Amino acid sequence: MKLHYGRVFQDRLDSVHGLPRARLAELERRFGDIHAEVRRRREGGEYGFYQLGEQPVAVQQIRRFAEGVGQAFDHVLVLGIGGSALGMKALLNALKRPGWNELDDEGREFFPKLTVLDNVDPTSVAEVLRRMDPRRALVNVISKSGGTAETMAQYLVVRQWLEQALGPKATGHLVFTTDPAKGALREIAQKDGIAALEVPPAVGGRFSVLSPVGLLPAALVGIDIEGLLAGARRALAKAENAELLKNPAALYAGLHWAADTALGARVHVLMPYTDRLREFAEWYRQLWAESLGKARDRRGQDVNLGPTPVGAVGPTDQHSQVQLFMEGPHDKVITFLAVDRFNEDVTIPAGAGLPADLAYLGGKSMAGLLQAEYQATAAALSRMGRMNCSLHLEQLDAPALGEAIMFFQLATGYAGVWYGVDPFDQPGVELGKKLTYAAMGRPGYTAEPLGLPPGDVA
Amino acid sequence: MKLHYGRVFQDRLDSVHGLPRARLAELERRFGDIHAEVRRRREGGEYGFYQLGEQPVAVQQIRRFAEGVGQAFDHVLVLGIGGSALGMKALLNALKRPGWNELDDEGREFFPKLTVLDNVDPTSVAEVLRRMDPRRALVNVISKSGGTAETMAQYLVVRQWLEQALGPKATGHLVFTTDPAKGALREIAQKDGIAALEVPPAVGGRFSVLSPVGLLPAALVGIDIEGLLAGARRALAKAENAELLKNPAALYAGLHWAADTALGARVHVLMPYTDRLREFAEWYRQLWAESLGKARDRRGQDVNLGPTPVGAVGPTDQHSQVQLFMEGPHDKVITFLAVDRFNEDVTIPAGAGLPADLAYLGGKSMAGLLQAEYQATAAALSRMGRMNCSLHLEQLDAPALGEAIMFFQLATGYAGVWYGVDPFDQPGVELGKKLTYAAMGRPGYTAEPLGLPPGDVA
Repeated sequence: MKLHYGRVFQDRLDSVHGLPRARLAELERRFGDIHAEVRRRREGGEYGFYQLGEQPVAVQQIRRFAEGVGQAFDHVLVLGIGGSALGMKALLNALKRPGWNELDDEGREFFPKLTVLDNVDPTSVAEVLRRMDPRRALVNVISKSGGTAETMAQYLVVRQWLEQALGPKATGHLVFTTDPAKGALREIAQKDGIAALEVPPAVGGRFSVLSPVGLLPAALVGIDIEGLLAGARRALAKAENAELLKNPAALYAGLHWAADTALGARVHVLMPYTDRLREFAEWYRQLWAESLGKARDRRGQDVNLGPTPVGAVGPTDQHSQVQLFMEGPHDKVITFLAVDRFNEDVTIPAGAGLPADLAYLGGKSMAGLLQAEYQATAAALSRMGRMNCSLHLEQLDAPALGEAIMFFQLATGYAGVWYGVDPFDQPGVELGKKLTYAAMGRPGYTAEPLGLPPGDVA
Repeated sequence: MKLHYGRVFQDRLDSVHGLPRARLAELERRFGDIHAEVRRRREGGEYGFYQLGEQPVAVQQIRRFAEGVGQAFDHVLVLGIGGSALGMKALLNALKRPGWNELDDEGREFFPKLTVLDNVDPTSVAEVLRRMDPRRALVNVISKSGGTAETMAQYLVVRQWLEQALGPKATGHLVFTTDPAKGALREIAQKDGIAALEVPPAVGGRFSVLSPVGLLPAALVGIDIEGLLAGARRALAKAENAELLKNPAALYAGLHWAADTALGARVHVLMPYTDRLREFAEWYRQLWAESLGKARDRRGQDVNLGPTPVGAVGPTDQHSQVQLFMEGPHDKVITFLAVDRFNEDVTIPAGAGLPADLAYLGGKSMAGLLQAEYQATAAALSRMGRMNCSLHLEQLDAPALGEAIMFFQLATGYAGVWYGVDPFDQPGVELGKKLTYAAMGRPGYTAEPLGLPPGDVA
């Protein structure tokens, strides 16, 4: 994977907008401290996701399960939310045939269907249970803490559904992914003899797709999990480099931090040019937003900072958000995520009797049209003085995706240091949880009035 | 539908953040001019979408087609992009059973499957054609101009695929939705005798979901299109009111404009609390971004303004973006979109032997948990001094959705006047189109180098 970052600079945009080239040398000078801080924090036990490149034990367990028990099922139902769902949705979207669940057994090469329930919308839950055959279903419940309200509510409903159909055999249709020692899920697993994989304690939810959280479902549908990890190791190796210009994740983070803090470019857009990375952009959104959006910095000062990540898909979003990117405020940095070689292509026929307006399309390839649109959009943004950069994947396979995932995790880890915040906590969601627990009558929480304020209705 | 807007004000947030209550009176005073300008522009032929409440001829044509020819097909394939795809995806997501294409004929009540191709990703296109039976497929090609590059490229590929399977009968499997007189699609329809519906010339693409653009596919899958329009008429009626406090769309627009221009709250989040409105938030994103993100105002002055719309889904995004909303910069207004009554509910079982941590969930309803999470999140954001407001739908049916769609279109139309920009053009995407045409060798366009600048690679 290559990062092309020239078009964040004024001199490449021919514009008063963009970063002055001199900022790069400043970032390089400061990088010694940044790099040292990451190293120090890693030694102190933070940055647990660095360990995900090498997981021989977990990989063996996952493969044993996927190639053994896992073979017996036609449908995998994942219960999880946030970091326990977004990464796996990105893997499925990128690496399996589109519309996976609409394919027949042969189309899926006899791998199971995969459905993710990542909400407590009753319509979604009821519909899935109505449609799925419990005798053919394997349910993977994923919660690092083992107590996530939404996931545990789903689990209680789904377990009853399994037991009503299967009686005591229900436990054989469950596999948990959770903390090795703590929490309600681990407790249930031990009591009821349910298979359970481990989320490494040092790996936070939004950094966990390359742990058993994402790897077990991936392996069950036939994704090359060793390939994912091989790609991740490529990104990890580059991120050791103490020269900023040879450390793409640190550089990406530093340039975005500089664009935000020096120029107010606080909207960070990720725009892959393929449908296959639509869910990847959703995954990135959680990673960037939840890691960097913080009220206090590492020293406890009030800062209320954090970029707003936005997902887009090209060329589709040229017909949606790109007007704003071209002409709106100069408050954005756009990252294109381009795939150089598509696995298949479609030729646009050069039909006789075409209206003259369409003749230029005849005989061209669809991938060619898509690549022309990417290049044209990036060039046009540059001429309008809009900061942008490009990440190029040679092709979209498991190693490339593993590298892209780890690249963004590393960039997020570096961005935490550039911004001076803890990228691994999420203290801002505690108040909402507390108020929810109180409203649901959880012991130890005092209910408070939650309704809308009176008046001000139209 | 009700708009609860108290929590955009300082006095309801108990905070230095938020709009001073006195701003409301200022907006009310200014509204006379705003309202008059909208009225004047409507009389001048802009704001064509106001006419979509009453479309007896189009509705009759659509129903005749859907209940006649349309009955003969198992699968509807829509080719369209941007405004020709996003609205219909929102209709399907909101009003049909989840996972529609995974259901069997009976589960779909014998209505067809619906697949939307809104990109030129060759993998997506090749996969759909591999899977679909051309003998059972109806292809709806949607392009207002009749010349959209992506849609026409798809059309050429799909037409060849139909002809290879069906010979001259292929034309009976096509229906176009396009301008009544102009463009390549209209030309082809006339030459080849292909059924074609009309996009009213005064209705722009992103305002067209309640025209035949969205209504034909909706009718084909059994959505109550008269219900949609009845709901739209409710929103239209309210938007005639000359009192700002009784005109929710104008008020919504005015409050967002004030929050943006006075407080720098330039990120506008739409966060429905149901999976059924996920695509609605995507539709809103195009509407708000493309209409309001403009380089020049109505008087031709350089302004480079426009809010960045962001979609989120509750409770899911409480585990993704909400940390940023709670603690990040005070640069956002969050709109919750809540459904008061779900069509079905699921009870969380009160299993014996549950870990104590989970006992509070037992016996509760999933809709109840979801509503508690919405209220808790809105209350928590308010305590953190974060501007938010709520739109409440009584339930999610065709009239409610039609009202919500028209509400946002009206709000966008009003926002154009508050911001002083033309909400109906998109001049910023022309340069990218021109460069694409040149790269594709379209006559009349001179190719220019589009590659990435040299150097600056990591």
